[in-house]
Amino acid sequence: MVKEETRTRIIQEGARIIHEKGFNNTGVQEILQAAGVPKGSFYFYFKSKEDFGLAVIDYFSEFMGGRINAHLSDDSLPHVGRLKSFFHEMTLFFRQEGYSRGCPIGNMAQELADLNDTFRMKLKESLDAMESAIARCLRAAHDAGEIEPDLNPGETAYFILNSWEGALTRMKTEKNLEPLIVFDRIVFGRMLKGA
Amino acid sequence: MVKEETRTRIIQEGARIIHEKGFNNTGVQEILQAAGVPKGSFYFYFKSKEDFGLAVIDYFSEFMGGRINAHLSDDSLPHVGRLKSFFHEMTLFFRQEGYSRGCPIGNMAQELADLNDTFRMKLKESLDAMESAIARCLRAAHDAGEIEPDLNPGETAYFILNSWEGALTRMKTEKNLEPLIVFDRIVFGRMLKGA
Repeated sequence: MVKEETRTRIIQEGARIIHEKGFNNTGVQEILQAAGVPKGSFYFYFKSKEDFGLAVIDYFSEFMGGRINAHLSDDSLPHVGRLKSFFHEMTLFFRQEGYSRGCPIGNMAQELADLNDTFRMKLKESLDAMESAIARCLRAAHDAGEIEPDLNPGETAYFILNSWEGALTRMKTEKNLEPLIVFDRIVFGRMLKGA
Repeated sequence: MVKEETRTRIIQEGARIIHEKGFNNTGVQEILQAAGVPKGSFYFYFKSKEDFGLAVIDYFSEFMGGRINAHLSDDSLPHVGRLKSFFHEMTLFFRQEGYSRGCPIGNMAQELADLNDTFRMKLKESLDAMESAIARCLRAAHDAGEIEPDLNPGETAYFILNSWEGALTRMKTEKNLEPLIVFDRIVFGRMLKGA
């Protein structure tokens, strides 16, 4: 029980630092220090840094999945409005964070997809899950006549998620919200603006 | 003269390795070894790893700028066709490369924008230059009546570049061309499909 709690604390602190600095750029000792765990005890909790990285991806995926689903299941809004509301929450988060960090899953995908196939598959699953949630929302919007009938919900969801990831990288580089504002204007003001 | 040639070789080899593995994940010794330069002579050519990184960004920017401008100045095609032809060349490149690496500027922006403000400003300039080239092309397409009159060329160029960067991260993660194919279908088949 205590072991499990400590493991969770290492994952949370590790996730925070990796989100700021990247995976390869974050040392095991730095994570243990932030978590207040004695040096050298890392391998008591994780088989390897890879094993730890996979647990961090799970942690990020659960968090993101929770936020997406909270918005997309909000019956008080039309389907497109729910999606807009999710991106709006994210936009507020990044404003608070000084336009830094970006999407932890997108960051790790960019950094690690070519370097480690186990990470790549796990990150692919995570992006696929976000995409599926958006696709389900757009299919419902399509069925409800909220969006243009010739818009393919699956393809549009795929494009929107990828565009969002790119907008976040640009936001980090510009240190302002402009990429997210333009994303909102084009995705919600044009692509999903309705029949 | 010889010093300049060696410096160029270090930049080229460094750029290749950084494109594969990331900046922080690439060691100075590894670059010197690839360039066939004696260990320990790095600081004869560069003031610091940062100084070297800035030269690598210049190298990537010049290369990308050259390729974009080659396509966008091709008078044999309509303006939108020139842009499509640029992305088509990039797509063929990534197919050859096994769907790996992605955009070197986007990668370094994602990795370094939060960590180093000098890099961030340089990477911002590079992305701004690519965006400006695309915006000029779309303004010409707009003036020629090739795209919908209510489409804002500057904003659309900004969105397209960011979406492309995100599509490349997804491509690395999926190890297939689907993200680039969907990008093409939505950007050229819908957004820029004409009045």
